[in-house]
Amino acid sequence: MLGHTYEGQDCSLARALEIVGERWTLLIIRSALLGTKRFDAFLENLEIARNVLTKRLTRLVEHGLMERVPYQDRPVRHEYRLTASGRDLTRTVIALTQWGDRNLPQELDPPRRADHIGCDGTVHIELRCSGCGRAVHDEEVVVRRIR
Amino acid sequence: MLGHTYEGQDCSLARALEIVGERWTLLIIRSALLGTKRFDAFLENLEIARNVLTKRLTRLVEHGLMERVPYQDRPVRHEYRLTASGRDLTRTVIALTQWGDRNLPQELDPPRRADHIGCDGTVHIELRCSGCGRAVHDEEVVVRRIR
Repeated sequence: MLGHTYEGQDCSLARALEIVGERWTLLIIRSALLGTKRFDAFLENLEIARNVLTKRLTRLVEHGLMERVPYQDRPVRHEYRLTASGRDLTRTVIALTQWGDRNLPQELDPPRRADHIGCDGTVHIELRCSGCGRAVHDEEVVVRRIR
Repeated sequence: MLGHTYEGQDCSLARALEIVGERWTLLIIRSALLGTKRFDAFLENLEIARNVLTKRLTRLVEHGLMERVPYQDRPVRHEYRLTASGRDLTRTVIALTQWGDRNLPQELDPPRRADHIGCDGTVHIELRCSGCGRAVHDEEVVVRRIR
């Protein structure tokens, strides 16, 4: 998988997918947003193979989405903390989760919810126009090549 | 890749990633949002291998994100159209693209932009609270397990 690139796709989406499009990566980010920091905790929460987790965390650190920080001296132990860039995936994680809630029905309620801290409300993704300031429906958006 | 599942991750995000987390799939969706419909047009726009494109489109049709519709009789030719569920990925595609714009700097402007139809504005992703109605910063959101 590494080394395989989206050739010819010189755009932010393709570059983003090179980093966060690998299997498990967004689930690792979501787990970190939920507060997970330590290797063994990711391992347990995600039921992911140890070697895959190691690879994904290493790549996230290399690309600046996470920092590997010592939290203990003897023996030295490290934990993984989201950087601003990693935390900035909040909207992507919520957008995709809420797409799943809407389009992949299951019998039970969605087991995770995005809450507004200090308020009883839940948080939803919206499209908003920087021109007119209105909330925008999906059908009112056109994605354009600008060169 | 097929047959490999995110075991133990019973949530909307994992189920969404089973479908749209495969390599190329979100780029195919983005291309469809840009207006691409025909197999050869996807092939040309994306510079993707023919067998990979065939697999991805088949899977998108199977999961109801696209429909395969005849557009010509002799010989019969089909095109691929986004369903409501496929089009509903607009926010995910924009969220991830704008994350790339912010966090994976490049020399030139982003080559694609989400425009508000009938307005001069560009469209951005926002988090909004259904309780207080305010726009919410990433730092004000907590993703909670609700069971």
